[in-house]
Amino acid sequence: MPDLLWPGDARGDDHLTEGSFLRAMVEVESAWLDVLGVAHDPLPDLDPAAVPAEAAGNPVVELVAILRDRLEGDAARWVHRGLTSQDVVDSALMMLLRDAVSAVRRELREQIALLADLAETHRSTAMVGRTLTQHAVPTTFGLKVSGWLSAVLDADDGLGALSFPVQLGGAAGTLAAIVELGLDPARARDRLAGALGLEPVVPWHTARAPVTRTGDAAVGCTDAWGRIAGDVLVLSRPEIGELAEGSGGGSSTMPHKRNPVLSTLVRRAALAAPQLAATLHLAAADTVDERDAGAWHAEWATVAALVRRTVVAGSQATELLSGLEVNTQRMAATLAAADTGSEQRAMAELAGRAPADQYLGAADQIIDTVVDRARRSLKEDERT
Amino acid sequence: MPDLLWPGDARGDDHLTEGSFLRAMVEVESAWLDVLGVAHDPLPDLDPAAVPAEAAGNPVVELVAILRDRLEGDAARWVHRGLTSQDVVDSALMMLLRDAVSAVRRELREQIALLADLAETHRSTAMVGRTLTQHAVPTTFGLKVSGWLSAVLDADDGLGALSFPVQLGGAAGTLAAIVELGLDPARARDRLAGALGLEPVVPWHTARAPVTRTGDAAVGCTDAWGRIAGDVLVLSRPEIGELAEGSGGGSSTMPHKRNPVLSTLVRRAALAAPQLAATLHLAAADTVDERDAGAWHAEWATVAALVRRTVVAGSQATELLSGLEVNTQRMAATLAAADTGSEQRAMAELAGRAPADQYLGAADQIIDTVVDRARRSLKEDERT
Amino acid sequence: MPDLLWPGDARGDDHLTEGSFLRAMVEVESAWLDVLGVAHDPLPDLDPAAVPAEAAGNPVVELVAILRDRLEGDAARWVHRGLTSQDVVDSALMMLLRDAVSAVRRELREQIALLADLAETHRSTAMVGRTLTQHAVPTTFGLKVSGWLSAVLDADDGLGALSFPVQLGGAAGTLAAIVELGLDPARARDRLAGALGLEPVVPWHTARAPVTRTGDAAVGCTDAWGRIAGDVLVLSRPEIGELAEGSGGGSSTMPHKRNPVLSTLVRRAALAAPQLAATLHLAAADTVDERDAGAWHAEWATVAALVRRTVVAGSQATELLSGLEVNTQRMAATLAAADTGSEQRAMAELAGRAPADQYLGAADQIIDTVVDRARRSLKEDERT
Amino acid sequence: MPDLLWPGDARGDDHLTEGSFLRAMVEVESAWLDVLGVAHDPLPDLDPAAVPAEAAGNPVVELVAILRDRLEGDAARWVHRGLTSQDVVDSALMMLLRDAVSAVRRELREQIALLADLAETHRSTAMVGRTLTQHAVPTTFGLKVSGWLSAVLDADDGLGALSFPVQLGGAAGTLAAIVELGLDPARARDRLAGALGLEPVVPWHTARAPVTRTGDAAVGCTDAWGRIAGDVLVLSRPEIGELAEGSGGGSSTMPHKRNPVLSTLVRRAALAAPQLAATLHLAAADTVDERDAGAWHAEWATVAALVRRTVVAGSQATELLSGLEVNTQRMAATLAAADTGSEQRAMAELAGRAPADQYLGAADQIIDTVVDRARRSLKEDERT
Repeated sequence: MPDLLWPGDARGDDHLTEGSFLRAMVEVESAWLDVLGVAHDPLPDLDPAAVPAEAAGNPVVELVAILRDRLEGDAARWVHRGLTSQDVVDSALMMLLRDAVSAVRRELREQIALLADLAETHRSTAMVGRTLTQHAVPTTFGLKVSGWLSAVLDADDGLGALSFPVQLGGAAGTLAAIVELGLDPARARDRLAGALGLEPVVPWHTARAPVTRTGDAAVGCTDAWGRIAGDVLVLSRPEIGELAEGSGGGSSTMPHKRNPVLSTLVRRAALAAPQLAATLHLAAADTVDERDAGAWHAEWATVAALVRRTVVAGSQATELLSGLEVNTQRMAATLAAADTGSEQRAMAELAGRAPADQYLGAADQIIDTVVDRARRSLKEDERT
Repeated sequence: MPDLLWPGDARGDDHLTEGSFLRAMVEVESAWLDVLGVAHDPLPDLDPAAVPAEAAGNPVVELVAILRDRLEGDAARWVHRGLTSQDVVDSALMMLLRDAVSAVRRELREQIALLADLAETHRSTAMVGRTLTQHAVPTTFGLKVSGWLSAVLDADDGLGALSFPVQLGGAAGTLAAIVELGLDPARARDRLAGALGLEPVVPWHTARAPVTRTGDAAVGCTDAWGRIAGDVLVLSRPEIGELAEGSGGGSSTMPHKRNPVLSTLVRRAALAAPQLAATLHLAAADTVDERDAGAWHAEWATVAALVRRTVVAGSQATELLSGLEVNTQRMAATLAAADTGSEQRAMAELAGRAPADQYLGAADQIIDTVVDRARRSLKEDERT
Repeated sequence: MPDLLWPGDARGDDHLTEGSFLRAMVEVESAWLDVLGVAHDPLPDLDPAAVPAEAAGNPVVELVAILRDRLEGDAARWVHRGLTSQDVVDSALMMLLRDAVSAVRRELREQIALLADLAETHRSTAMVGRTLTQHAVPTTFGLKVSGWLSAVLDADDGLGALSFPVQLGGAAGTLAAIVELGLDPARARDRLAGALGLEPVVPWHTARAPVTRTGDAAVGCTDAWGRIAGDVLVLSRPEIGELAEGSGGGSSTMPHKRNPVLSTLVRRAALAAPQLAATLHLAAADTVDERDAGAWHAEWATVAALVRRTVVAGSQATELLSGLEVNTQRMAATLAAADTGSEQRAMAELAGRAPADQYLGAADQIIDTVVDRARRSLKEDERT
Repeated sequence: MPDLLWPGDARGDDHLTEGSFLRAMVEVESAWLDVLGVAHDPLPDLDPAAVPAEAAGNPVVELVAILRDRLEGDAARWVHRGLTSQDVVDSALMMLLRDAVSAVRRELREQIALLADLAETHRSTAMVGRTLTQHAVPTTFGLKVSGWLSAVLDADDGLGALSFPVQLGGAAGTLAAIVELGLDPARARDRLAGALGLEPVVPWHTARAPVTRTGDAAVGCTDAWGRIAGDVLVLSRPEIGELAEGSGGGSSTMPHKRNPVLSTLVRRAALAAPQLAATLHLAAADTVDERDAGAWHAEWATVAALVRRTVVAGSQATELLSGLEVNTQRMAATLAAADTGSEQRAMAELAGRAPADQYLGAADQIIDTVVDRARRSLKEDERT
C-alpha cells in the first residue's frame, strides 16, 4: 500500500480500506441470506473499482445489482431482501471499526507493558521537571512515564467501553420488510448480529453515538500518543538530549542528521485527528428524517481515515516506546545545573526545619499506583 | 446576565462564569487551609475584575496575593502552601463542570420522561418515513420519538460515565511541597477531594482525559438535541405542518410569523459544539513537559463555553419537547397521499402472499424496548 | 478509481493522488537537474508503492535514492543536490494544487454561466420567501438564484486570489547549498519556478499561508455549493416540490424512490471541509524551528483530501445545476396559499397609501447587479 | 473587564462585547431613521441586560420594542420600518469587525516595523538552523525573523483584503418594504452604508463570505503569531537560552521561575482559533432558505470570540516582540558546538572546491527582500 501522503500508512494493513469495506458489505449480504434461510454459494470477491457508488449515493445499490447478476436462483432473488442500504453500510463499517479497534488495543496493551516496565526501571532516575518550558522542581523520569501511562490507560478504557452494534432497520427503521417477509424481526436481528460478531440492538440509523463514540475514543488514543511524542521531541533536542528515538530517520541532504521520525509522525496524527472526530459529531447533530441527505454520507471516509490513522499511529507509538533511549546522565547533569530549590526552601522554612535530602515527594507512590493499574488492566485483558 | 450574542445564555445561570470560577478557586484554597489544619475565617468573596490573570498567565498568582493580603496570621502565611496554580484551576474547573453536568442531567431526566410518554402516546400515530428528504415507507411518530429518546439516553449514559477528579500535584506533579510540609500526600489528597466533592486520583496535570471526556460527553448531548431540533424544523415547515413549537418567536417586521425559535437555538448550539471539543483534544494532544505553555490555557474558556452552552441548550430542548404540538391529522394526510407501497408490494410478492394490512413492522417492539430502557434509567436515577 | 467511501471520488481524476504527487516530485527533481545544467534522460515513471516514505518521514529521501540508482553519470551524482525534501514536497504539492484549482475554476465558470441564465430566466418566477423555515414575504426564484450566484462568484474570487509559489530554500531556508554549488540563488529559483509554472518567492518553509489560503478558498467553494445543495434538498421535498434534481438516484429497496443524490453528496462535502481547513491552520500555527516535526507532515494528506473533494463537489454541483428542474406552478401555488401580506399592509398603512400590486421590491435590480458581475467575471476569464 | 478564563482579555477593550454590539445596533437603527428622513433625538444608551434576546431568537425584536417605547412621535412610529432583524444584526457586527480589524492592523503595523528592524539588526547573528528539532545547517537570527515577518505581512495582506458590507435586504432580501415605503432602494442602501462606514452591496443574507473571510483572515494572524510564539518558547528553554521574553510571569509556588507568559497566551489563541473559523464556514455552508434557522445564529458569538481574541493576541504579540531579548552569545556557542557541516562538505566536494568560509547562502538577500516588502507595506499604510 502506498503511503506517500501519510507516511507509515502501510502499517494500517487492510483496516478500513475500500477493499475491506466491500468485503464486509458482501459478508453482511451473505449473512443475511443465511438469516433468510436461502442456500447460496460463497458470495464473490469483488473489485472496488467495479462498484460505482455515486449514482445511488452509496455503493449498496450497485453492489446488490452485481450480486443479483452473479448469483443464481433463490439466492439471486432473495439477496438483500428486507435490508436497506444503511443496514449494509453501517453494519460493514461497524465490523471494520471493531477489527481496527482490536488492533489498536493490541498496540495499547504492548505499550502498557512497556510503559509499566519503563516507569519502574526509571523510578529513581531524577530529572528536572519543566513547566511552561522552564525548569521547575525535580521529578523522575519514571514519574513522567507514569503520566504517559495514565493517559494510555485512559485511552484503552475509552476503547474498551465501545460496542459495535449491527444495523438492521430496513427502509425507515421499522423492519417492515422483514416482518412482511414473515420473519421474526428480533430473531432475525440477533442472528445477523451473531453471524457478524456485532451487538444486537434497536435500529440506530439516526442516533449516531456508535460512530461518534468510536471517533472520540480514537482521538483519546492519539491524544495520549501525541503527548508522549511531544515530550520525546522536546527531550531529544540536542541541547537537552535526555531522550532519543532508537533509530532516527535520515535527511535528503544532511548526512549527519538523525531525525525523530516516529515522534514526528505520531504528533502529525494527533494534530489532525480531533477535527475528524468533530466532523462525525456534526454529522450526528445535523441529521434529520429517517436517513439524512449528506450527514450520514460524511461519516464513512471520515471515520475510516480517523481510525485507520489511529491504527498506524498506535503501531508507530509502540515502536517509538520500545526503542526509546534514555540518557540518565544528561538528566542528572541538567538537574544538577538547574536552580530548582526555591520552592523546597520556602516550604522547609514554613515547616520550620531543614530541607529534606531530596525533593521528589510522592513520586514513588504515584508510580506504584499507576503501574498497579497497568498490571491489573493487563491481567484483565488476559482473562478475556 | 446579558445574552445578546448567544440568545438564551441566561438559562446557564451562574454555571461556568468567571464569578463562579473565582468562587470555586477560593473554595479550593479554603479547603486546602483546612487540610493543612490552619484555622481561618471564611475566605472573602472577590470581584473577578479585581483579579488580573494575565501577568502570570493564570489568575492564581494574583488570587493568592490578594488572599495573603486579606487573611491574617497563620492563614495568610499558609494559604496555598503546597499547591500550584494548576491544582487550583483544575480542581475549580472540575467542581464547576460537575455542577453543570448535574444540571444537564436534570434536564435529560425530564426529557427522558417526556419522550417516553410521547413515544407511547404516539405509538399508533402513523406518518410517512422520510429518507434523503423523500417519502420512504410508513413509520409512526412514536417510533421517531423513540429514536430521539435513544440518542438522549446515549447522551445521558455519556454524562453518567464521567468523573470529576481533584487535581493535587504541586509544582511538577510530585507532591513534593506537600511532603516537605510534613503531610501524608495521599491523605491530604483524599481530604481535599472529599471537601470539594471530587474524586481522589493521581495527578493528571498532563493526562487530560477528564477534560476531553467531559467535552465529548457534552457534544454527545448537543448531538442528540440537534437531531431533535432538526426534525422539528423540517416537520414544522408550513408545507409539512406535522409538528409545531408550542410558542413560536416573533419577527421584527412580519407580524404574522411564528418562528421555531427553540429549535433554532438548539440547532445553533449543535453546530458550534463539536469544534470546541476538538480544541480540548488538541490541547490534550499538544501538551509537553510537566505543564504545557498554552495548551492548558486554551482549555478554560473553551470548556466553559462548551459546557455552559450545553446547559443552555438542555434547558431549551426540555422546553421544546414539553411544548411540542403534534398534528396527527397532517401526518395521516401526508401518509395517505404519499406513494409508499412499492417496497411492501415487492416483499409480499416475494413472500408469495398478499400485502399485510399495515406496514409498520416492529415499530411497537422497538418503542417498547427504548421506553423500557428509559423507565429503567429513570428508576436508577431515583435510587441514586 | 474506486470511490466506495466517498461516492463520486472518481470525478477527481488524477488530482492530488499519490501517483500524481509522485510524478510532480519527479518533475521537480528533473527541472532542478535542468537548472543545474546537468544533461539527463527523462526521469522514470515510478510506482508509488515502490517509494516507502516512512523511514525518513517523507518520501523524498527514498525517491532520491531510487533516482540515483536509476540515473547514470552526472545525473546520478547531481540529482537533488542543493535541494531539501521540503523543496520537493512543497513545490510538487503546489503544482497539484494549482492544477486542481484550475479544474475547480472551470467548474465555477460553467456554474456562473448557468446561474446567470437561471437567474434571468426566473426573474419573474414568484415564490414564497422562507426564513427560519417559515413563510415570510414573496421573493422570486431568480433572486434566490442570484444569491447562489453571489456566493459562487465570491468563491471564484477566492480561488482567483491564490498564488502557487515554488519552494526553494535548502536544508534550513538559506539556500546555502545552492550558493556553495556556485549558482546564483535568485536566478536558480526563477528558473525552477518558471519550469514548474510556479511563482518565484522567498522560502516559505515556515510561513504557510500558501497552504492555508488554498484551504480557505477551497472551503469558500464548498460553502457556496453546500448552501445551494441545502436549498435544493429543502425545495425538493415532496411536500414542497418546487425544485427537483434532473435525475435522482435509486434506492436499494424502494423502487419508487428518486433521491436527490447530487445535492446529498455536495452537502456531505460541505460538512466535512471546514474541519480539514482548520487542520491546515493548526499546522501553520503550531510550527516551530526551520521545519516542524509533525505540523508540516499533517498538511499533505489533509490538503489533498480537501482540494480533491472540492474538485469532486464542483463537478457534482455543475451537474446538479445543469439538470435542475424548476416547478414554477408549485412555486406559484405555495405563494398563493401562503399568508405573506402582513408586512406589506403595515408598510402601506405607514406610508399612507394602498398596498402596491406586487411586493417584490428591488428583486430585479439585485438580479441585474449580480448577473452583471457574473457576465463581467466570465469576460475577464475569456481575456486571460 | 474580567479575564479569568482568558487571561489578557482586557486588552480587547470594548471590541465585540455585548455592550458594543448593542450600541452598534442602536446606531444602525438611528442611521436608518435618518435615511427615512425622520427627525429624532439621539437614541438612548441601553443596558444589554435589559434586552432579552431569546424569545425572538435575536435581540432586535426586543430592541425595537424598547426603542418604540422610548421614542416619541414619528420616530417611535418609523423606527426599524423597512428593516429586518438580520439587517440590524449583520450591519452592527460588520461595524464591530471593521473596528476590531483596524485595531489588529495597528498592532500588525507595529510588529512589521519591529520585525524589520530586528531582521536587519540580526542579519549577521549566526545561529544553528533546526529541522525536526535537530541541528541542521547554520542560519541567522535575522533570517528567522524575516520568516516571522513574511508570515505577519501575509496576515496583514489578508486583513487588508477584507471589506465590511452593510446588510440591507428586508424580510427576505428583496427590499420590498423599503420600496413599499416609497424609497429608492439603492439610494437608501448607499446612504445607510455611508452613515455606518460600510460598503454598499447587494444583500448577502445567505452568502456569508463577509463573515467567513473575516474569520479566515483572523486565523491568518493567529497562525503567524503562534509560529513566532512557538519559536520563542523553544528558544527560551533554559537548555537553549537563545531568546527570552522581556519580562516573564511569576509562579504561584516557585519564586525562582520566570515564565514566557506572553508566548504562552499567544500560542493558546493560535490553538483555539482555527476551530472557531471552521464553525463560521459550517454556518455558511449549512444555510438554507432566505434566513437559516440556526446557522446564522451560530455566527455571532463565534466570530466575536475569534476576532476579539485576535485583538488580544495581537497586542500580546506586539509586546512580546518589543521586549524580546536575544542572546547572541548562546546562539554563537550552540552553533560552534553543533555538527552542521556535513551538507557543505558534500556540496563543496561535488563542486570540486574547498568549502567556503561561511555557509549562509542567500540569507542576506532573503532578508533584504522581506524587509523591503515590509518597508513598502508600511509606506502604503502611511499614504492611506
